[in-house]
Amino acid sequence: MTTNGHTNGASAEPSSRFDPNFTSHVIKTMGPDMTPRNRQVLSSLIRHLHDFAREVELTNDEWMAGVHFVNLIGQTSTKTRNEAHRISDVLGLESLVDEIANKIIAEGDLDPTSSSILGPFWSPDAPFRENGGTIIQDPNPEGRVCRMHGTITNLLTGKPIPGAVFDIWQASANGKYDFQDPENQTPNNLRGKFRADDNGRYWFYCYHPTAYSLPTDGPAYQLITLMDRHPMRPAHIHIMACLSLPPFSPLKARDSRTGAFTRAAVTHPDFKGCTTQLYPKDDPWLETDTVFAVKDDLVVDFKPIRGDDKATLELEYNVVLSPKGYKGKVF
Amino acid sequence: MTTNGHTNGASAEPSSRFDPNFTSHVIKTMGPDMTPRNRQVLSSLIRHLHDFAREVELTNDEWMAGVHFVNLIGQTSTKTRNEAHRISDVLGLESLVDEIANKIIAEGDLDPTSSSILGPFWSPDAPFRENGGTIIQDPNPEGRVCRMHGTITNLLTGKPIPGAVFDIWQASANGKYDFQDPENQTPNNLRGKFRADDNGRYWFYCYHPTAYSLPTDGPAYQLITLMDRHPMRPAHIHIMACLSLPPFSPLKARDSRTGAFTRAAVTHPDFKGCTTQLYPKDDPWLETDTVFAVKDDLVVDFKPIRGDDKATLELEYNVVLSPKGYKGKVF
Repeated sequence: MTTNGHTNGASAEPSSRFDPNFTSHVIKTMGPDMTPRNRQVLSSLIRHLHDFAREVELTNDEWMAGVHFVNLIGQTSTKTRNEAHRISDVLGLESLVDEIANKIIAEGDLDPTSSSILGPFWSPDAPFRENGGTIIQDPNPEGRVCRMHGTITNLLTGKPIPGAVFDIWQASANGKYDFQDPENQTPNNLRGKFRADDNGRYWFYCYHPTAYSLPTDGPAYQLITLMDRHPMRPAHIHIMACLSLPPFSPLKARDSRTGAFTRAAVTHPDFKGCTTQLYPKDDPWLETDTVFAVKDDLVVDFKPIRGDDKATLELEYNVVLSPKGYKGKVF
Repeated sequence: MTTNGHTNGASAEPSSRFDPNFTSHVIKTMGPDMTPRNRQVLSSLIRHLHDFAREVELTNDEWMAGVHFVNLIGQTSTKTRNEAHRISDVLGLESLVDEIANKIIAEGDLDPTSSSILGPFWSPDAPFRENGGTIIQDPNPEGRVCRMHGTITNLLTGKPIPGAVFDIWQASANGKYDFQDPENQTPNNLRGKFRADDNGRYWFYCYHPTAYSLPTDGPAYQLITLMDRHPMRPAHIHIMACLSLPPFSPLKARDSRTGAFTRAAVTHPDFKGCTTQLYPKDDPWLETDTVFAVKDDLVVDFKPIRGDDKATLELEYNVVLSPKGYKGKVF
């Protein structure tokens, strides 16, 4: 009760009419039996939440609108729809968490391939396919076939990584992934894993990607509308690259549909996997991606191809992986 | 895409490995067609959310745990259970919003009665009762009857406010409100509105209040447990005081069960109502109220009473109301 002294006199923050001790009191109420990390995270969360409310002088009506909005998020979510995930994407939080986890500024001239968000559509079930094969099981008449190829190299040595695995998934030309579109697509359409050859090279056929909109119902779209933003993601190809020389070690990764962590087949104890997305340089939504997942080195140039009767376009993309535990420049 | 320049060189915040422009880019993506207030609130919310994530270097697992927790909040809420409201109470947010809306530091010697949170149990349906009457419709053998009385006065003149209305609601001696406890309590048990007499005085019978616990299931209790806190509210009596001289004007107030705004019968255009709570001074939970709603001037002394065969205790509480629009000291 002593946190709200009923005095008209001095306070630690004389420039505010608010109790200067309220937030620290809430934080100090936490007991001794919690982990130091939980204490750190929740203390910071409470401090920022309170600072936000005081900064904007949040009104009772605004707070209650927020309460109802938070309830609506969970009420909109289902086993196959994670609205809280989408809300955090729209606010830039997943991209920021991805940067915090993965951002490395290398000490040498070469940088590792930038990470980007996994998003909600990765599947651990994508089959291994042979180099030179295709991920297009169910052709879409609008799809523009692309021969994609590149080399996977080691950041520190600059040498190729034989046997590295390149996992790719993408929406079809209608903007939908296989499990959003069971009428037109069979499971694992436009998904596949490829193993790099002895020179670290991979090659296969996919589609030039297609831009699509987030769902236009539910609280995430309400928030987008309130912010006078568009719901578009730029066209993109998802990739995940990791080393797969024996001994294999399971990679902990999230199941995109349930949010649960599951195990993919392929990684190596010595290399950090890279999950990211690639974007055509002429896409109109690059600057305003609704989930803020675009980075400069992920913007690529699809070129016309000659002499390949299976494709009209070509994309070369070389992936640079850093050894696990490599921190780069320390700040 | 230019928000994440892939350079090893200079940045606006050279001490961080994170993109210094990311947060401002997310904010600038908001379009022109939103109200200035929405822009202010959402910009501040995004900035604090990102600052929190960077400050604690929020991990992917922690973010995903948060995503699932947010979904669980809405999934736990029902028409009669508002879990997002409770979560914000446990984090101190409702008390802070209440302070922001109502805190006045007066220029004179007298201070207005401190506001405290409405909580989820107010009802617009409490009946008017006569001074000298009781709010105890359904006696509880553990209840200790108290004669409560006081005067409602004007902050600026110090004079009583005849006809002011004093609305009271409280849990029974089992810690439950009428609509939580239909087996033992009839509607409006321990609720009532009283109109002050010509001298601004009110008087009636109620119970000494009983401490109770928040529900011990659901995400709010999960959060309480994670923070190693107890779920107890100190014993308290809820009161709402407002002026009711004609012409009557409807008071906008929330329906506690639905969260919707509804209309109470009584207020006056010239006086601001006061919603608050009173706490016995010997309650063990005053310092650690799980919703942080205790303030010094709301802690009261229940005294033994003599010569009243209806009660064993007495409580005098005088309410000081400030005129609507009175701001007090300006900071």
